[in-house]
Amino acid sequence: MKRIGSRENPVIKECRSLKEKKYRQRYGRYIIEGHKLVREALSSGQPLQVMVREDCEAIYWDAEQARPDIEWYCLEEQPFNWLADVSQPQGVLAVMPLAVSTLDELPRNSASGIWLYLDRISDPGNLGTIYRSALALGAGAVLHSKDCADSFSPKTVRAAAGAMLNLPLAIDIGLNDLRELKEQGFQLLATDIGDAEPYYMCSYQHPVILAVGSEAHGLDPEVKSLCEQAIAIPMQQGSDSLNAAVAAAIILADHARRHIICKP
Amino acid sequence: MKRIGSRENPVIKECRSLKEKKYRQRYGRYIIEGHKLVREALSSGQPLQVMVREDCEAIYWDAEQARPDIEWYCLEEQPFNWLADVSQPQGVLAVMPLAVSTLDELPRNSASGIWLYLDRISDPGNLGTIYRSALALGAGAVLHSKDCADSFSPKTVRAAAGAMLNLPLAIDIGLNDLRELKEQGFQLLATDIGDAEPYYMCSYQHPVILAVGSEAHGLDPEVKSLCEQAIAIPMQQGSDSLNAAVAAAIILADHARRHIICKP
Repeated sequence: MKRIGSRENPVIKECRSLKEKKYRQRYGRYIIEGHKLVREALSSGQPLQVMVREDCEAIYWDAEQARPDIEWYCLEEQPFNWLADVSQPQGVLAVMPLAVSTLDELPRNSASGIWLYLDRISDPGNLGTIYRSALALGAGAVLHSKDCADSFSPKTVRAAAGAMLNLPLAIDIGLNDLRELKEQGFQLLATDIGDAEPYYMCSYQHPVILAVGSEAHGLDPEVKSLCEQAIAIPMQQGSDSLNAAVAAAIILADHARRHIICKP
Repeated sequence: MKRIGSRENPVIKECRSLKEKKYRQRYGRYIIEGHKLVREALSSGQPLQVMVREDCEAIYWDAEQARPDIEWYCLEEQPFNWLADVSQPQGVLAVMPLAVSTLDELPRNSASGIWLYLDRISDPGNLGTIYRSALALGAGAVLHSKDCADSFSPKTVRAAAGAMLNLPLAIDIGLNDLRELKEQGFQLLATDIGDAEPYYMCSYQHPVILAVGSEAHGLDPEVKSLCEQAIAIPMQQGSDSLNAAVAAAIILADHARRHIICKP
């Protein structure tokens, strides 16, 4: 591993800049943190750089031997902590390539396929939590409208617990894209509140796109009017909404219960 | 309304101190923010003080007339913003009495009753999100172990979207309390991962307590061993966990689907 002792090192400075969206976009890279996530990224093959705090160097000797294609760095504590996003960093982080897909690149194989369409989800914690649920509950991809929170911000990545490593994401998907997907045979479902059909009564015609609206404004009326059907989660008197990430997960879990063969 | 123009006013200073847990406990009060929440609190009867930013004063004239039992204050922008927890405050907040219940005070009427037991949930956003889901999906109360995040911190209150105004909460509930509830006829269920019974196969014997473990450590083994049964949410290969608030909501939603008559 190349040793780095100073914040002034250009590798460190570029890595630090990835905390900001404009530099993530300029360099096409983002950061993941922690042993579990980095191990997962190493086994799925994508990291460009791995930064190890010096007291953790020995943990990664074997991995370094196995992956000479990656740039490995051993950092003193001070520059490492400057890169880390959490207050008690575990001692390892990796720089990953930003991976977004075009609609044509998304996998379209499953007979029980369901994708999410996120309309202006603005909280990065909600966005990451949705990725985590989507991967666990069998969604094949997540599509994003303009003005969603950034998929690769440190908060999103942390809440996703690594889900973006294995979940195809498409961004800036607009009404015309949705219209085209509908013509291609996708059933568009709108999540709604009030007296829409209860989600557990919904008859899915796969492949399905489930549209989830923003925390503050719900679903864009134009997106809603494109959808064939609206479904809602029935609530107790006195409640009128759920957290957006919770609502998406409840519907995905019910879809998985009815249509997806899960591991036990 | 009494007018306040300075941060140095003792009413303002006490209110500001409520951002910290120790002062919330000392004064037995906490803060809610925003028009929707304050309106809800006014109609359910509990606020001790309402603080209105001067440009919003007219909105609350009627409410002030209707509720002379409450202390009403009209604040200049600078002291108001000092109290507010969000960057773009709506212009109203209320000081509420901390409301926690003993186990004996919790309502025990429902034939489909389900309570949550939260074991060391440490993220205030998760805690508030759980309250919001619990109220919407028919949980009758939320019990907390020691070392949960604070139920009345600004972050918890915001994520709860006011759910704590209508949801009975009991704190510092330990193993002996759970043992006693079990003897009183509660069915204790542990949320688990792996090959426990899928949640949608679970046969509920009401009243039920659903125990949810901490984000980092899962459920305390002693709590788990008290539970009659463990249930899990089946996940896709490659995923091994869900956000704690998401997991609780998925199980509560399925319980509501099977056992609770919801409004349409």
